Amino acid sequence: MNQPQTIAIIGSGAIGSYYGGRLAEAGHDVSFLMRRDYSAVRQGGLKVTSPDGDFTLANPKVAQSSEEIGAVDWVICALKATSIEEAQELVRPCVSTNTRILVLMNGLGLEERFAEWFGSKRIFCGLAFTCINRGVPGHVHHLAYGPVTLGHFQNDPNELESALALWAQSKVQIDASPSLLHSRWEKLCWNIPFNGLSVTAGGITTDLIVGNPELRNMARSVMEEVIEAGNADLAAHSEDAKIDRIAVIDRMFGLTDTMGVYRTSTMIDFAEGKAMEVEAIFGEPLHRAQSLRVATPRLALLTALLRTLNSKR
Amino acid sequence: MNQPQTIAIIGSGAIGSYYGGRLAEAGHDVSFLMRRDYSAVRQGGLKVTSPDGDFTLANPKVAQSSEEIGAVDWVICALKATSIEEAQELVRPCVSTNTRILVLMNGLGLEERFAEWFGSKRIFCGLAFTCINRGVPGHVHHLAYGPVTLGHFQNDPNELESALALWAQSKVQIDASPSLLHSRWEKLCWNIPFNGLSVTAGGITTDLIVGNPELRNMARSVMEEVIEAGNADLAAHSEDAKIDRIAVIDRMFGLTDTMGVYRTSTMIDFAEGKAMEVEAIFGEPLHRAQSLRVATPRLALLTALLRTLNSKR
Repeated sequence: MNQPQTIAIIGSGAIGSYYGGRLAEAGHDVSFLMRRDYSAVRQGGLKVTSPDGDFTLANPKVAQSSEEIGAVDWVICALKATSIEEAQELVRPCVSTNTRILVLMNGLGLEERFAEWFGSKRIFCGLAFTCINRGVPGHVHHLAYGPVTLGHFQNDPNELESALALWAQSKVQIDASPSLLHSRWEKLCWNIPFNGLSVTAGGITTDLIVGNPELRNMARSVMEEVIEAGNADLAAHSEDAKIDRIAVIDRMFGLTDTMGVYRTSTMIDFAEGKAMEVEAIFGEPLHRAQSLRVATPRLALLTALLRTLNSKR
Repeated sequence: MNQPQTIAIIGSGAIGSYYGGRLAEAGHDVSFLMRRDYSAVRQGGLKVTSPDGDFTLANPKVAQSSEEIGAVDWVICALKATSIEEAQELVRPCVSTNTRILVLMNGLGLEERFAEWFGSKRIFCGLAFTCINRGVPGHVHHLAYGPVTLGHFQNDPNELESALALWAQSKVQIDASPSLLHSRWEKLCWNIPFNGLSVTAGGITTDLIVGNPELRNMARSVMEEVIEAGNADLAAHSEDAKIDRIAVIDRMFGLTDTMGVYRTSTMIDFAEGKAMEVEAIFGEPLHRAQSLRVATPRLALLTALLRTLNSKR
């Protein structure tokens, strides 16, 4: 196998614990920065249920501060996007000259922040199409499975190889993205309509969106706004990649039609009274659309409603 | 004074009880069709608090069926718009050859139904810009006050005189509308943005809409859609009256800026878990806009969200 790498998981919620756990399972030397689950995992290990196979890490490395972990080969930052302002301070103690950083977070404009803080060349992004929940402390439930799309911030294919190698022995299915910005926007083509409507319609699952002709039609109209904004943003960044309108709409609805009673991440935050990732998933795409003079009235309305709902969290 | 009239109030909620009470106070012979408050009012009378003067009807005529009331000079139908399908049956026993009907309900397309059932010539409309709540049974609280705009379904000025005469001795401030459809749409210029956003932003008062730059701007964008749809609908009905865009926007925001912590009627229904008047206030205006090919993306999104929220009531 490839050389085992030292890895720091910054933000060991459901996503960080699951993917960090898979990398530890594959033989890497993984340290988890933990808050809520620190004591439980230290005493009882990390237990994961998954359709790709359950596993337990009996005695994982856990830490309560990034300084305890120190410099590593790879930082995987899986904080919620609402914690972006804390990310620099939490990540820095784990970064030395050759450290690479994989941003495993939802939304737009996050890698740009990491690139400002730590330089562009070491920044990677992972887009997880999945559903993972935390159970009682120390337990993580991986429910729905899809690939993780990996990209390099500068779309450097040689750099991307190093990220693919990291995951090569793991059970995680990986897709390589030749254009990170294109992949980000494609994921937003799903997240903006479905996360947005699932919350503003009162906290509903996605089957109720695709199964209701009016909401399905509205989800499609919102998606068309995102496609137009995304293509304008890609053009503004001199990216050749373009979102194929019909193909993406067909794929996103085809996917959602098979997903059953699915709770979007934003809807879970809403239902649990937690802060929703509004700026990264909605606010930054809206800001870019408005700067590029793309009309996005539905995205603007969803964003205004979600910001107001979020202000009461 | 003018000849006292016999009046049946069909739907004696807050609105019906208040305005019926004012007409009784002015000397008319008013019968109230009551459900929830029947026993309380029969025993203890109807008590009204109001900035225009508190009053009590010690022994008002109350009935549990329209047949008990029988034919009258004026029927005032103050049902919730969600009960429109029951209106014909509830009103008919009170209608004889010369009976006039005043529809005191929110939304678009209601007079048309009464005109189908009872003929156009006898149909009037009252638009109440007010805030009235029910307290404990037998108590009504009139909080905010504005005029009631009266119009005739066919805009016949002679007919309209009869409606103005009805209210002449009352303490209710009346405005005469030369174009009922125009007045309906003007009221929707307020109700659609403010009722819509107050619910979908999580159940907020209107001061939080006008006081938040993003929501204020969104309310204005929604209002512009309503103005455009209204003007197209007025033109389609060969009405000369036109909504003056700038004047209406200025007036509606000026009004709302002075209203303080105001709960819209739809927001009150939402907060109390009751059926919201979605079809009359949102669905029918949207339907007309779409028939006339006026782009109303924000109205469409609000309507879809409100219908979904309403389906859980």
